[in-house]
Amino acid sequence: MASEHERIREIQRRLTAGAPSIAAGVRVSIGDDAAVLAADAREVAISVDAAVEGVHFDRAWLSLRAIGLRAVSAALSDLAAMGATPRCAVVALICPDSLTDDALYSLIDGVADAQQRYACSIAGGNLARGRELSITTTVIGMHGARPLLRSGAREGDGLYVTGVLGEAALGLRALQASRAALAPRAVERWRAPRARIAEGLLLAACERVSAAIDVSDGLVQDLEHLCRASQLGCVVEAARLPLAAEAASASALGASALALALTGGEDYELLFAAAGPVEGLAATRIGTFVRDPALYVVDESGAPIALADSRGFDHFGRAAEKSGTR
Amino acid sequence: MASEHERIREIQRRLTAGAPSIAAGVRVSIGDDAAVLAADAREVAISVDAAVEGVHFDRAWLSLRAIGLRAVSAALSDLAAMGATPRCAVVALICPDSLTDDALYSLIDGVADAQQRYACSIAGGNLARGRELSITTTVIGMHGARPLLRSGAREGDGLYVTGVLGEAALGLRALQASRAALAPRAVERWRAPRARIAEGLLLAACERVSAAIDVSDGLVQDLEHLCRASQLGCVVEAARLPLAAEAASASALGASALALALTGGEDYELLFAAAGPVEGLAATRIGTFVRDPALYVVDESGAPIALADSRGFDHFGRAAEKSGTR
Repeated sequence: MASEHERIREIQRRLTAGAPSIAAGVRVSIGDDAAVLAADAREVAISVDAAVEGVHFDRAWLSLRAIGLRAVSAALSDLAAMGATPRCAVVALICPDSLTDDALYSLIDGVADAQQRYACSIAGGNLARGRELSITTTVIGMHGARPLLRSGAREGDGLYVTGVLGEAALGLRALQASRAALAPRAVERWRAPRARIAEGLLLAACERVSAAIDVSDGLVQDLEHLCRASQLGCVVEAARLPLAAEAASASALGASALALALTGGEDYELLFAAAGPVEGLAATRIGTFVRDPALYVVDESGAPIALADSRGFDHFGRAAEKSGTR
Repeated sequence: MASEHERIREIQRRLTAGAPSIAAGVRVSIGDDAAVLAADAREVAISVDAAVEGVHFDRAWLSLRAIGLRAVSAALSDLAAMGATPRCAVVALICPDSLTDDALYSLIDGVADAQQRYACSIAGGNLARGRELSITTTVIGMHGARPLLRSGAREGDGLYVTGVLGEAALGLRALQASRAALAPRAVERWRAPRARIAEGLLLAACERVSAAIDVSDGLVQDLEHLCRASQLGCVVEAARLPLAAEAASASALGASALALALTGGEDYELLFAAAGPVEGLAATRIGTFVRDPALYVVDESGAPIALADSRGFDHFGRAAEKSGTR
């Protein structure tokens, strides 16, 4: 095993190789007591996210390189939801002694992939020993426009979502059932999620948009956050939910496509409240904010779907109990 | 055990109780997708530090409240060394299921102590499950003056240090030997370190100061970082090292006061290069930067002390091997 000093030097080499142009605004990067970033906007956005082996990821289904990319993407999704432009990130790793140098460097290569994909410099970090592998990523962004909050939705606003829902959860189900071939696109979506940075910037720039959040825990749970912060309720029309291209495979995996769309996490789409469509942004209107502070999912006739009684809603019982809105 | 949602609400309550005035510049705090901070200086400093149970702390010697304060102090020490003013921090906790609600809230109370002590808002965080307790703190500061780097020391500059050296290590030795009464002040110093924020600001504002670092790993190791970054060597005069008030207790604990001062970590003093004393700052000149890129510790006659052969230098063998300067 390389010494800590050697590891840091190799990490630094991998993160800077071929990436000198990324560091716009980063004045001091890895190797000093702190990273230094030019404060060239009015506001700075900061968010942190952790991924723990055995809880958030499993090396049986993901390469370490994919784990690195995924960890940074998940953290950046929170900046996307705020409408911030990513500038830099610092990555704190806790590594068990059993983690080989090669394994560590694969993880770092994934972090470097994220650096390239999002033009977000990895400007610092920390290496610590521990019994369990974890990667904690703090992301720093700048706000050109206003920050997009969870609060601010107005009664009558439409509820919109980018992309499709339930696809990552479908991919995870396929992996869990050892039937990845049933939904290869969904598996890839789960393995390599993408933070919706450009979409978030469009939302923050559009006055019609009143509130936003990213879908990390599943539509129902994240919508509850949006409703609670905005002190409103919402009626979601089940028939309007944008499903994954391979949603038909859900039943073969013992799941329902609707349940996955409502409660499946890790899609990292943006869910937002707006008075009307956002120009230039592909999004689907899936519901309407209402004064009654409850969350309804209705069928095409307008009748509420009794979610808590349905089967296949992994997190729903807990989500409903936590929401306090039902 | 409270639900994650309840825990977050209680954490938020404890961090905001009695502390509304701290949040100068923090526009969005805990409860949204990211924290938002006013960018009211030219540069932002960002640093991250992790403390892992069994590696960095042990509940036998520290209360959870002390662990929380200590974790934030250690992270802020890096901002002090850059000459930045702390503005906010985000705290990512990985908690085993065995951590009770009360234990978690004690840890948070320590984080809240740090918030008060340093006027640094805890503006966000993350709660994750894992097998091992850890606390990863990312601190964000602003630079009114230039950032103070590790590089920049000039040949002939004096090497200075604030406060005393080896005191925290002395306290740790006393605890390890179950003889805390031999050095109560040192024990307290180890338990509750203080980031030298005001001192760092004085350094950054003084043109005579050319480089700085905080003493977290021990004088020798941290001085090596300073030397390597500045491409210089240094001659340290052993007789000038400022020792702890209780340094005489070292021998009763099987240690040497000099060894503790040279290699004892966690003092969090500031070590800096300067062309002369800094007005208004209590610091001791302990050496001189030289062109020869090696590190010498000399006695009063100017003869080098053969560190590697001495007893009691816990980390020295490794530090010397890593430095590449000897």
